[in-house]
Amino acid sequence: MASRLKGKFAIVGVGETKLGKLPDWTTLGLHLDAIKRAVEDAGLKIQDVDGLVTNQPLEDTHRSYAVRVAHAAGINPTYATDLALGGATPCAMVQHAVMAIDAGLCKTVVCVHARKQATRHQTPTRGQPLRDGEEDFEEPFGLYGAVVNHAMAARRHMFEYGTKSEDLAEIAVATRGHACLNPAATMRKPITVADHQGSRWIVEPLRLLDCCLVSDGGGAVVVTSAARAKDLRRPAVYVLGFGQHHPHFSLLEARSLTTLGGKVSAERAFKMAGLRPSDMHFAEIYDCFTITTLITLEDYGFCKKGEGKDWVKNGRIALGGELPVNTHGGLLSQAHIEGMLHVTEAVRQLRWDDVEPERQAKECRYGVVSGHGAALSMHATLVLGREPA
Amino acid sequence: MASRLKGKFAIVGVGETKLGKLPDWTTLGLHLDAIKRAVEDAGLKIQDVDGLVTNQPLEDTHRSYAVRVAHAAGINPTYATDLALGGATPCAMVQHAVMAIDAGLCKTVVCVHARKQATRHQTPTRGQPLRDGEEDFEEPFGLYGAVVNHAMAARRHMFEYGTKSEDLAEIAVATRGHACLNPAATMRKPITVADHQGSRWIVEPLRLLDCCLVSDGGGAVVVTSAARAKDLRRPAVYVLGFGQHHPHFSLLEARSLTTLGGKVSAERAFKMAGLRPSDMHFAEIYDCFTITTLITLEDYGFCKKGEGKDWVKNGRIALGGELPVNTHGGLLSQAHIEGMLHVTEAVRQLRWDDVEPERQAKECRYGVVSGHGAALSMHATLVLGREPA
Repeated sequence: MASRLKGKFAIVGVGETKLGKLPDWTTLGLHLDAIKRAVEDAGLKIQDVDGLVTNQPLEDTHRSYAVRVAHAAGINPTYATDLALGGATPCAMVQHAVMAIDAGLCKTVVCVHARKQATRHQTPTRGQPLRDGEEDFEEPFGLYGAVVNHAMAARRHMFEYGTKSEDLAEIAVATRGHACLNPAATMRKPITVADHQGSRWIVEPLRLLDCCLVSDGGGAVVVTSAARAKDLRRPAVYVLGFGQHHPHFSLLEARSLTTLGGKVSAERAFKMAGLRPSDMHFAEIYDCFTITTLITLEDYGFCKKGEGKDWVKNGRIALGGELPVNTHGGLLSQAHIEGMLHVTEAVRQLRWDDVEPERQAKECRYGVVSGHGAALSMHATLVLGREPA
Repeated sequence: MASRLKGKFAIVGVGETKLGKLPDWTTLGLHLDAIKRAVEDAGLKIQDVDGLVTNQPLEDTHRSYAVRVAHAAGINPTYATDLALGGATPCAMVQHAVMAIDAGLCKTVVCVHARKQATRHQTPTRGQPLRDGEEDFEEPFGLYGAVVNHAMAARRHMFEYGTKSEDLAEIAVATRGHACLNPAATMRKPITVADHQGSRWIVEPLRLLDCCLVSDGGGAVVVTSAARAKDLRRPAVYVLGFGQHHPHFSLLEARSLTTLGGKVSAERAFKMAGLRPSDMHFAEIYDCFTITTLITLEDYGFCKKGEGKDWVKNGRIALGGELPVNTHGGLLSQAHIEGMLHVTEAVRQLRWDDVEPERQAKECRYGVVSGHGAALSMHATLVLGREPA
């Protein structure tokens, strides 16, 4: 049934704000800047947009943040929602845009995601403690925050499959290599496996260079029907498949720490697209930590479970290799915008004329994007292509 | 395009929790209770459910509340989202359920909404002030909270159309009349127009009896395909049409205070259903205040703009009249569950065997449900029917 939607909708514009430490910007300002850039990129006017999907900033109020952003941007929406799926949000936003247009609620949707994590506002009304865990059975015992959760998954992967810290280093090094080719990336000094191994523990077995950045910034994409996309100024990038799976909430409920929501989510996305992992020319894989990338590559079927540690070596996931992964530098080395720039980067790669030539995945026609949410609990997938079928 | 979805999906189960002051219940507990009741009502097992849409409690964390509730309930979701559209949330939840099933993300979705407003938990981590407004240009000047916003709309309606407080009383009296027939309603003592006129001002021109209750409680519905619905134990109630419109965010941006999002939202919902307002046999109209009901009835086209004040009189909106409105007693007299019970009540009316005989709208085949969000800014509509076409 889902394959009815394959190739019927397209991403026709992308926008990326400045990244890094942006103390002079508000979260709302970043949303508006990303929207403006994406709509201009599509060759549209803001009045052409009638739907908006946003992330939910932590300082959210009871009133819809999506409706707030819409009207600040000059959009009068007949569809608006904000999503709270952590790092799975950007992929899920595009899915909601497709569904809402298909249902007739609207015609052209902007999906926008922005956060201020590096220079966070702390005002009295917004000053609640940053909470990201389960307050009864996790936080009081120190199981608090993303790095602790992912360290547990890394430890378990090491136990089950013999994965070592040096294996994770391969992912950090390849990703940094891509960031060095991206002028928008925050971290542009090359690193080696030895640098990774010399970096300090954050939470064992994760070292500093296993961990993503903490950034301010935003990104946006414009989604519309394939029919409308044909008349616009930039090459359309088609939505071929998508999926979601949220296999637990609390880490303590997880059925597995080494097979996550990506397995079911990607199976569904590939099935909808009628494509296999081996058809992909690149992958933008959510990389809050190196272990996340490793687990997701296995879950997506690029290699068997437990074989990721060898599979990622010898340049396979670097540009020029069999499957370039995180061609923008990812959360590890470009900036942490909760995966939104994984989506914009995939679109830009598939346009062929939008990234630096040395950063272009050659003759790419298909790419996959993963999003992964807090406590390893949420997952969403997009399969994108240069052609609708 | 939207009419492709007409009648293809159905509500097959409803659940309603206890209502009122429930200090012994948590918000999560109310969600779980409503889900359990709805799934049992449908004759399904929790394992049959693979999608969940929830409201967003104010004490939400960064991690998806929908995923939290799903796993607490035993649902392993391939679609989950939580919505923050205020009182427009319940109608929008059903729309998201339909879209997600249609897109192939899942097959059977529970939409659940619960709040603790009457006996709210206040713990240190949840103790942020209740904020429901715009912090730069509204709150500092006293434009704070729902009753103030709606009082401005009421005053404007009075200025433009000559509506009087006594006219609003008609809505309060008719709604209370229905609550008196509903054992689940909080307020079951009949009232008269004189009682309304004798009740104290809350914010002029709104009196105590123009205002909704403040309640604890929850409700849920199960949505699945019309094909699956045929095999289930209860009569299916079909989703025939839906719409949304969110015409402003801050009240200060509103293009009008007397024509709101309901106009566009209902036009789209009726068009999708291929039906007119005059085809409806009852209406469950969001009634946070009497003025909301009046404006929505006009916006939906039951009468012309400005003529609501006479149209609602002489028993027209009471059971037995031309268009029974809020047959459960609404937010004004049953309980304030942000419109979720408007949806469950519409389903129960259309089943013909599920409410007290004296509360049954006779031979009803079509009904419309409205949801209306904070600061008059958000609106969603559902048209439901006993038959798929």
